[in-house]
Amino acid sequence: MRVDLSRAVLADNDALADATREALTAAGVLCVGLLSSPGAGKTALLEATADAWGDPSRLAVIVGDVATEADADRLRLKGVPAVQINTQHHGAACHLAAEPVAAVLATLDLASTDVLFIENVGNLVCPVGFRLGEHRRAVLISVAEGPDKPSKYPKAVLETDLAIVTKVDLSPYVGVSLGELTQAVHQVRPHADVLGLSTRTGEGLEAWVEWLREARAQLHG
Amino acid sequence: MRVDLSRAVLADNDALADATREALTAAGVLCVGLLSSPGAGKTALLEATADAWGDPSRLAVIVGDVATEADADRLRLKGVPAVQINTQHHGAACHLAAEPVAAVLATLDLASTDVLFIENVGNLVCPVGFRLGEHRRAVLISVAEGPDKPSKYPKAVLETDLAIVTKVDLSPYVGVSLGELTQAVHQVRPHADVLGLSTRTGEGLEAWVEWLREARAQLHG
Repeated sequence: MRVDLSRAVLADNDALADATREALTAAGVLCVGLLSSPGAGKTALLEATADAWGDPSRLAVIVGDVATEADADRLRLKGVPAVQINTQHHGAACHLAAEPVAAVLATLDLASTDVLFIENVGNLVCPVGFRLGEHRRAVLISVAEGPDKPSKYPKAVLETDLAIVTKVDLSPYVGVSLGELTQAVHQVRPHADVLGLSTRTGEGLEAWVEWLREARAQLHG
Repeated sequence: MRVDLSRAVLADNDALADATREALTAAGVLCVGLLSSPGAGKTALLEATADAWGDPSRLAVIVGDVATEADADRLRLKGVPAVQINTQHHGAACHLAAEPVAAVLATLDLASTDVLFIENVGNLVCPVGFRLGEHRRAVLISVAEGPDKPSKYPKAVLETDLAIVTKVDLSPYVGVSLGELTQAVHQVRPHADVLGLSTRTGEGLEAWVEWLREARAQLHG
C-alpha cells in the first residue's frame, strides 16, 4: 500500500509537471532544473549565468530551500527575477514538487523570459523522482565531494541530461580531477554529457551558456 | 491523511529505535549516528577514527548508501567490522530507518564493540527525522559547502548533538573559515558544540576521540 500511495502521488505530480512544461514551451521559455548536494554551487552557477547572459532580467529562477530566502536574494542582486519556495511549508521538505512550482509560475513575466531555472533543494536523492516541468535537467557534482558520488547516487546521473563537475579549481587541493569524475559519471551512464566548471576561474561557463542556447533553439525547432 | 500516515510511520520507527538503543546500552556499546551532505567526509572521519582508537576491531559501522558497498569496503580495510545497507532496497532510499538497522545488529559482535557508528545516506534533510537507536548524533558540514548550510538545513543542527566542521584545510581555497561556520551554527542553535576537523592534517581528531570517550563514559554512568 505504501508503494501504491507513492505511485499515485508521483502520477499526480507528473501530470502537473507536464502541464507546466507545455505552458512554458508555448511561452517560448526554456526550463532547466538544477539538482545537487548542498553546497555544490547551484546558486553560484546561476549568478555567473546572469553575468554571462547579456540581459539578466531575461532569466528567471524558482529556488527551493528547506528554509531561508537567501538564494533568491543573491539572484535578485544580479538582476534576475527570483521566487523562493521554502519546502518546509509544502509537505515533503526534501525536494520541490510540481504543485508549488506551478503555483508561483503566475508571478513570473514569462513573455520576457528566455530561460527559467528551477534550483532544487540540495539533495542528491529525493528531487530526482519529482518532475517539475523542466525541458532539461542538470546535476552538479563538486570535486570536493569526491569521485564516488555518481556510483552512490546513480539516478542523479541516469535521470538528468547533463552532469556539471563544479569547483574544478579545487582539484589540486582535494586530489580529485575532472577526468576522474567524468569517468565516474560514464561508469553509470556511458555517453552522458559532462562539463567541467569553475565560477571562480570562469572555466566552462562559455560551454554552459552554449548548452543553454542550443537547448533553447531545440525548444523552438 | 498524509500527515497521519507519516506520523504513524515515525512512531513505529521511534519505538524500534528505542529498543535498539536499549539493547546497545545494555551491551555497553555507544552508538553514534553521522549525518551530512554527500561528500562531507563521514567515511574519511571513520577511517581516521579507526587509526586513532587503538584497536579498530572494537569499533563497528553500519553504513547506509543508496547503492554500492564502497564505504563498508573502505572501513573493512581499516580493520573495522562494517555492514552496508543499500537503501534502494528498503522503501525510502533517502535515509536509513530503524528497521534495517535493527535487522543487521545481530550480525555484529556487540560484546567486543566499544562504539557502533551509523553512517547515514548523504542527505541533510531526510535522515534527521528518523531515529535509529543512537545515543548521540553528529552532523558534518564541510567548509567547501559554504557558510549558509546551517541556516538552510536548520533541523540538521537543531536535532544533533555535535556539529563537525570538516575539511578545514580547504578554508584558504574556498574562503570559508571555521569561525564563520561556527557562527552560522550558533545562529541556529546558540550553544551547540562545534568541532573543526581535517582528516588530511589531523586537526580536531584528538578532540573527536575525546568526545567519543566522554559520551561512552556517560553511557556507563
